[in-house]
Amino acid sequence: MKIGILGGLTPQATIEYYKLIISQYHNKIDSAVFPEMVIESVDVSKVHHLTMGKKFQQLIQYLSESMNNLMKAGSDVILIASNTPHLFYEDITRNVGVPVISIVDVTYNEVMKSKKNRIGLLGTIPTMQSDLYKKPFINTEIQIFVPEITQQDFLQEKIFKQFSRGIFIEDDITAVGNMIHQLKSKYNINGLILGCTELPIFLEQDDWDDITLFNTAAIHVDSLIRFLKKAHI
Amino acid sequence: MKIGILGGLTPQATIEYYKLIISQYHNKIDSAVFPEMVIESVDVSKVHHLTMGKKFQQLIQYLSESMNNLMKAGSDVILIASNTPHLFYEDITRNVGVPVISIVDVTYNEVMKSKKNRIGLLGTIPTMQSDLYKKPFINTEIQIFVPEITQQDFLQEKIFKQFSRGIFIEDDITAVGNMIHQLKSKYNINGLILGCTELPIFLEQDDWDDITLFNTAAIHVDSLIRFLKKAHI
Repeated sequence: MKIGILGGLTPQATIEYYKLIISQYHNKIDSAVFPEMVIESVDVSKVHHLTMGKKFQQLIQYLSESMNNLMKAGSDVILIASNTPHLFYEDITRNVGVPVISIVDVTYNEVMKSKKNRIGLLGTIPTMQSDLYKKPFINTEIQIFVPEITQQDFLQEKIFKQFSRGIFIEDDITAVGNMIHQLKSKYNINGLILGCTELPIFLEQDDWDDITLFNTAAIHVDSLIRFLKKAHI
Repeated sequence: MKIGILGGLTPQATIEYYKLIISQYHNKIDSAVFPEMVIESVDVSKVHHLTMGKKFQQLIQYLSESMNNLMKAGSDVILIASNTPHLFYEDITRNVGVPVISIVDVTYNEVMKSKKNRIGLLGTIPTMQSDLYKKPFINTEIQIFVPEITQQDFLQEKIFKQFSRGIFIEDDITAVGNMIHQLKSKYNINGLILGCTELPIFLEQDDWDDITLFNTAAIHVDSLIRFLKKAHI
């Protein structure tokens, strides 16, 4: 089975996915084999500009072309290695003939299993302001909380100008930590969705006793591994 | 221009290429754009077994399929991110309709420019024992020297079992260092081709005063950047 990755969103997160897929494959399926993959690495600046300029038709076309390239290169299952593009999941997967594992669906499942009910959400502005992570929980007991607008702007800026280039400054890490503390004191969250695949690079469960972190990238890869395991049998 | 990478050989080297291409693109072409890429990550274990079992027709077929996938995904220029498969460069690039920049050709050019004439070569056994890096220099003043057979076996083992999995143990790094010292004392080398894309991960020019290191991966990426720059004009 060949794994297709829609990547570049950002390159840092793509590298994390690539390493994680290989190590999880070795741990849980076969340590003697390196899974075959094809990675489409798109221009994250272009995606960012199209998103912020609300040029959604152009964006959908751009991402659909990449999905199509992943198909042409023989993908049997595809992951979109980023949360934000999942806003257009329906549109960009419509003509894809193989399973595309949704990061939102599998994160939803993990949150439901956890029994946590007051969930913070960090990510890009489109991820935090849209109903991407709110819709799945709409008929459940679970509530989703996001930071204040000024903090959202700060996080968006950091994700695109720093984290996406692999730049993680101590001050920024502290600021993101403070955001989480504030979500805790204001909304009493007991869970937190790391809704941007850069965040787990510097946020670790060990540093947060009373908040369960949902590492969307790791959950995504875990579900890929389960999918591959099933397909192997 | 979309960059195609035949990768996975090994995953560690592929990550280094990916990061280096992006950072060099930002430094030398356009810091606001992330170059579009497609990476085919093949199973390095399979390649290793086919190589060591001398099943070259199967190997050529496997790598040719990957080259074909890179074409289908829209590559405008391709790099094979590893030295050893360049043994089959002619066979696997024959039906590829776009430039495939050869790591051997561009390394040859760098060695010629350097005026160094006694050149050590480290890499996999096929790279060290074949004429891959000897042939280009055959009518020149330049001589190529490789370590003793037992050291070649050691290096081969380390590349496939450790380095390819991102495991770099101090003892192994020291052993590779000793290999270089021996090449120096035995053959008086003044240059060294790091003919395996894992080696530059732990061998740095700063540690070697009197030997010029030829980092084949970096030379490869530099020549890609020059190619892209020309194409931009």
